[in-house]
Amino acid sequence: MTNYPSILLSKAVDQFASLPGIGRKTALRLVLHLLRQSEADVEAFTSALNSLKQDVHYCRVCHTVSDQEVCPICQSHSRDRQTVCVVENVQDVMSIENTGQYHGLYHVLGGVISPMDGVGPSDIEIDSLVARIQPEAIKEVILALPTTMEGDTTNFYIYKRLQNLMASLPIGEGLKISQIARGVAIGNELEYTDEITLGRSIVNRVDFKV
Amino acid sequence: MTNYPSILLSKAVDQFASLPGIGRKTALRLVLHLLRQSEADVEAFTSALNSLKQDVHYCRVCHTVSDQEVCPICQSHSRDRQTVCVVENVQDVMSIENTGQYHGLYHVLGGVISPMDGVGPSDIEIDSLVARIQPEAIKEVILALPTTMEGDTTNFYIYKRLQNLMASLPIGEGLKISQIARGVAIGNELEYTDEITLGRSIVNRVDFKV
Repeated sequence: MTNYPSILLSKAVDQFASLPGIGRKTALRLVLHLLRQSEADVEAFTSALNSLKQDVHYCRVCHTVSDQEVCPICQSHSRDRQTVCVVENVQDVMSIENTGQYHGLYHVLGGVISPMDGVGPSDIEIDSLVARIQPEAIKEVILALPTTMEGDTTNFYIYKRLQNLMASLPIGEGLKISQIARGVAIGNELEYTDEITLGRSIVNRVDFKV
Repeated sequence: MTNYPSILLSKAVDQFASLPGIGRKTALRLVLHLLRQSEADVEAFTSALNSLKQDVHYCRVCHTVSDQEVCPICQSHSRDRQTVCVVENVQDVMSIENTGQYHGLYHVLGGVISPMDGVGPSDIEIDSLVARIQPEAIKEVILALPTTMEGDTTNFYIYKRLQNLMASLPIGEGLKISQIARGVAIGNELEYTDEITLGRSIVNRVDFKV
């Protein structure tokens, strides 16, 4: 156990070290950096965090982080409002937005089903997703969850729930459920691609298009 | 440039990303983690930082971080008060304390001389070190600065300053100036030791002791 020369220092280090991926050495380095800044700078740092926590909202519709009750994407009329992309978290929304390849809406689950971590379907925003999918308005749900066992479990659970929903519909009314393509990443050499990805990319090969 | 879904979020990310070694992706992860904590937890985080900045002191004698005007080490009478170990920063004090091998006092320079970074002798606590070394009270100064060019420059500068100090003393009054041992780190294989360290460890070999 490290002895800190100051209790105040030790408390500040405790706080930083409680953040994910920040060890005590890094925490100490960050705290000593802040200590070298002016009081106004530290005040700006802490007030940005306080006002974030106090004033930020989660969008009532898609559950992404937003300054408003309903986020700009959910409010926008220039977006494709018939397509909903289901993602795990806010970072995923930002990553997909950065590609510039998607123009529909989002739904942020806030996690994936993970029995090992005690996360069940009711702990994440699946009910609100199903409630939101009104087949007369939504034509496609894209599942863009992590390509892990937990992501696959969640994909399957959502698929089943949406199928139940569709069973009650008149014949002909359809909801398309898709998932993001999986395979060898663009720019990768095959010899450095892991065996599972490479194997599945052969099994799940698609027609060559020019 | 990433578009954040919320200005408050973006401001909090800016603050975290201003810390050394924290990129914008990590900053976003940390901020979203804090956002998931309770308001009381975030309040505890920010108030620990505010009170650190407002209430912490630098020891008047050795310049380490302390809750008091004079730090416990400088106040202690169970320590060897005739030896002063000169280090670059507060982390170094903690690292040396953790070894349990040193029982003297410290002097924290708050940096090393680095003309490239615009850090001169007057920007760090060298004057206060020289003022503190009263040869009737201090018998040894241990230079424990980084084994870099900047550390060596600072070592040499301090050595010269202390020599001037000693020149004014009556013959026989001595101040020992030492530096930490340099060589192959304990537990290291020679083949993985860099050439400069290995070369110098041969040139500067010492008598074998049993």
